[in-house]
Amino acid sequence: MVAVSLLEKYELMYKNALLKDVIPFWQKHSIDNTFGGYFTCLDRDGSVYDTDKFVWLQARQVWTFSMLYNRCKKKQEWLEIATLGINFLKKHGRDTNGDWYFSLTKEGKPLVEPYNIFSDCFAALAFGEYALATGDNTCANIASTTYNNILSRQSNPKGKFNKSIYKNRPLKSFSLPMILANLTFELKWMIGDDGFNKYAEQFLSEIMNTFLDKERLLIRENILTNGNQLDSFEGRLINPGHGIEGMGFVMDIANKQGRKEVINQAVEIIISTLEFGWDKEHGGIFCFMDAKGKPPLSLEWDQKLWWVHLEALVSLVTAFSLTGDKRCWVWFEKIHQYTWSHFPDAAFGEWYGYLSRQGNPLLPIKGGKWKGFFHVPRSLFRIWKVLEELKKGEK
Amino acid sequence: MVAVSLLEKYELMYKNALLKDVIPFWQKHSIDNTFGGYFTCLDRDGSVYDTDKFVWLQARQVWTFSMLYNRCKKKQEWLEIATLGINFLKKHGRDTNGDWYFSLTKEGKPLVEPYNIFSDCFAALAFGEYALATGDNTCANIASTTYNNILSRQSNPKGKFNKSIYKNRPLKSFSLPMILANLTFELKWMIGDDGFNKYAEQFLSEIMNTFLDKERLLIRENILTNGNQLDSFEGRLINPGHGIEGMGFVMDIANKQGRKEVINQAVEIIISTLEFGWDKEHGGIFCFMDAKGKPPLSLEWDQKLWWVHLEALVSLVTAFSLTGDKRCWVWFEKIHQYTWSHFPDAAFGEWYGYLSRQGNPLLPIKGGKWKGFFHVPRSLFRIWKVLEELKKGEK
Repeated sequence: MVAVSLLEKYELMYKNALLKDVIPFWQKHSIDNTFGGYFTCLDRDGSVYDTDKFVWLQARQVWTFSMLYNRCKKKQEWLEIATLGINFLKKHGRDTNGDWYFSLTKEGKPLVEPYNIFSDCFAALAFGEYALATGDNTCANIASTTYNNILSRQSNPKGKFNKSIYKNRPLKSFSLPMILANLTFELKWMIGDDGFNKYAEQFLSEIMNTFLDKERLLIRENILTNGNQLDSFEGRLINPGHGIEGMGFVMDIANKQGRKEVINQAVEIIISTLEFGWDKEHGGIFCFMDAKGKPPLSLEWDQKLWWVHLEALVSLVTAFSLTGDKRCWVWFEKIHQYTWSHFPDAAFGEWYGYLSRQGNPLLPIKGGKWKGFFHVPRSLFRIWKVLEELKKGEK
Repeated sequence: MVAVSLLEKYELMYKNALLKDVIPFWQKHSIDNTFGGYFTCLDRDGSVYDTDKFVWLQARQVWTFSMLYNRCKKKQEWLEIATLGINFLKKHGRDTNGDWYFSLTKEGKPLVEPYNIFSDCFAALAFGEYALATGDNTCANIASTTYNNILSRQSNPKGKFNKSIYKNRPLKSFSLPMILANLTFELKWMIGDDGFNKYAEQFLSEIMNTFLDKERLLIRENILTNGNQLDSFEGRLINPGHGIEGMGFVMDIANKQGRKEVINQAVEIIISTLEFGWDKEHGGIFCFMDAKGKPPLSLEWDQKLWWVHLEALVSLVTAFSLTGDKRCWVWFEKIHQYTWSHFPDAAFGEWYGYLSRQGNPLLPIKGGKWKGFFHVPRSLFRIWKVLEELKKGEK
């Protein structure tokens, strides 16, 4: 039982941050009315410090505005912003094979070849959600074609740009099944029940049977294709944010399919990942860790990143609403306190993305090559809505 | 004028660190007597936390032991260690085109394709220096073939793995001419005077005419092929360590060719880079900065790295010995104090590689994927020898 007044207080915090701070900030600073699409390299005050357009972030912004239009409020201006990005991506985003470039100039000229399958994943997500908002068939077709391309590229996602010699070290990475679990869930209206159940089962099983370290209840970032763990720095790598975010996607699917046991397992993984990944000295969740406590090789390993904390809040509040498990609420409160006292920028608006281990802003930016209009608004919206439901339940 | 007693004190510090700490640490922990080559992923106490073999680091360790044999002392055990790496690289390092893989398993099976031309650069450096030590013709041929391969791959160093679409953004990077300036200098005995003068001129001119921002006296990390600066985060990127290390290589060549004006220009660039790159709040030299003060996008931008500080000491002591410019000695002292109070690990030996902005060890490792037996011993040896000469001059 959580007091209604507390739920109400929190609900307002997430709602107001979304509607009065984050959306207006991106509406004001990111729109490129000259060439279409969005600027995402926004400095602390929103000024543009680089005009390149990264397909991941263009697509994520389209998705988020379309999703807000579909699920939050039918505001015409949100749909118009989404349209600006859709037209830019439709015109400039793909090569002749239909694969999505990684980045473009502000005018739309391609800068980096389609080596990164996550460009395609977020494009499919964007075109699907936009098609849902508008009924646009061309967009639905682009989403569907892109989704099928991704499925066929799964075993070698980098294609000709792959530098790893698989036969000598057949490693696969958690990111792809994780994102595909989410993408499949989001596109279920388009894929149909049979397709949804088939693919959802594939990705769920990969996550919970292959990548999950069942003894430690931690998700390994990389695993051998035969399912064995590799005792090297790649094989021992733990990305707590990915593990926890992935469990959010798993719970969405399991909830849709009414699979309580999967939800309960996801809750245990979230809790053990937080116990493992929480910085007991300075607070916050680490970026990268080594399963055996060896040194993680990424130089940003101890930094505190916005998406990790926001996605943890989403997973925890979802887990709490589905199970009532008190540990989830206790962790939600702990990360809520850390997040709100460290990430929002009271002076210039929007949220910092990158903090040092001690919790000070490492970079002043509100957006860049990886941070756009996505994790902050998506999470604020989701948490607001779950809190609203919880409040109704308590009344 | 620097007091002889101070020069003597410093000389002993560098000499003892090299001979009594760093060399014994790597001799004890890095040698793979089973498969040949070296382990470079060494934890704080020297224990191996990963057994992969990175061709850069294998080659750099061969070069350093061969160089110490050639220039410091004809110790048979140093040559034997170099031989262990040469044989491993000769057997496993190249693909059928003669291009050098990026990494190998401990047994020598290739893990990552030859996408990185610096593997080739350090292989040429290693085989050249080893050939000088032993008179081995096969090794001299491998060095020479590899050097020529690099020259022919210069305009597209990543080959088929290149993801950038040059026609839309023809950027080139400082790293390659910088390393080639050093490689050409080190291989001059093999290339001959004509070849040396020709290539040295090419790389010197690229560095001092193309990559140098003549107004700011800073080296740009990336520049358009037409020589113009690009106002984007890539185009504005400054890597102070590269700039200063590069000036060390420029001075080596200019000194060999008796070009005083180039040496004087290099000194000005070193000083202005240090003034720009020094962290006035916490001390130490930053990793990455933006020429216009915009946010640098690399998350490690504010970290203090071992190679940056050691290469700065090399460039400064060299500059001081060549010009007597007092600013170089003042900066040498300042960075010497910072370096000796932050990088050496008194408890377990050897030097930390990665410090936080505040100067605390960010990782406990003594070696990894990028830090091996190279910058620390090379710099300690070089500084020791220059201080020894300075001392003789003062007596």
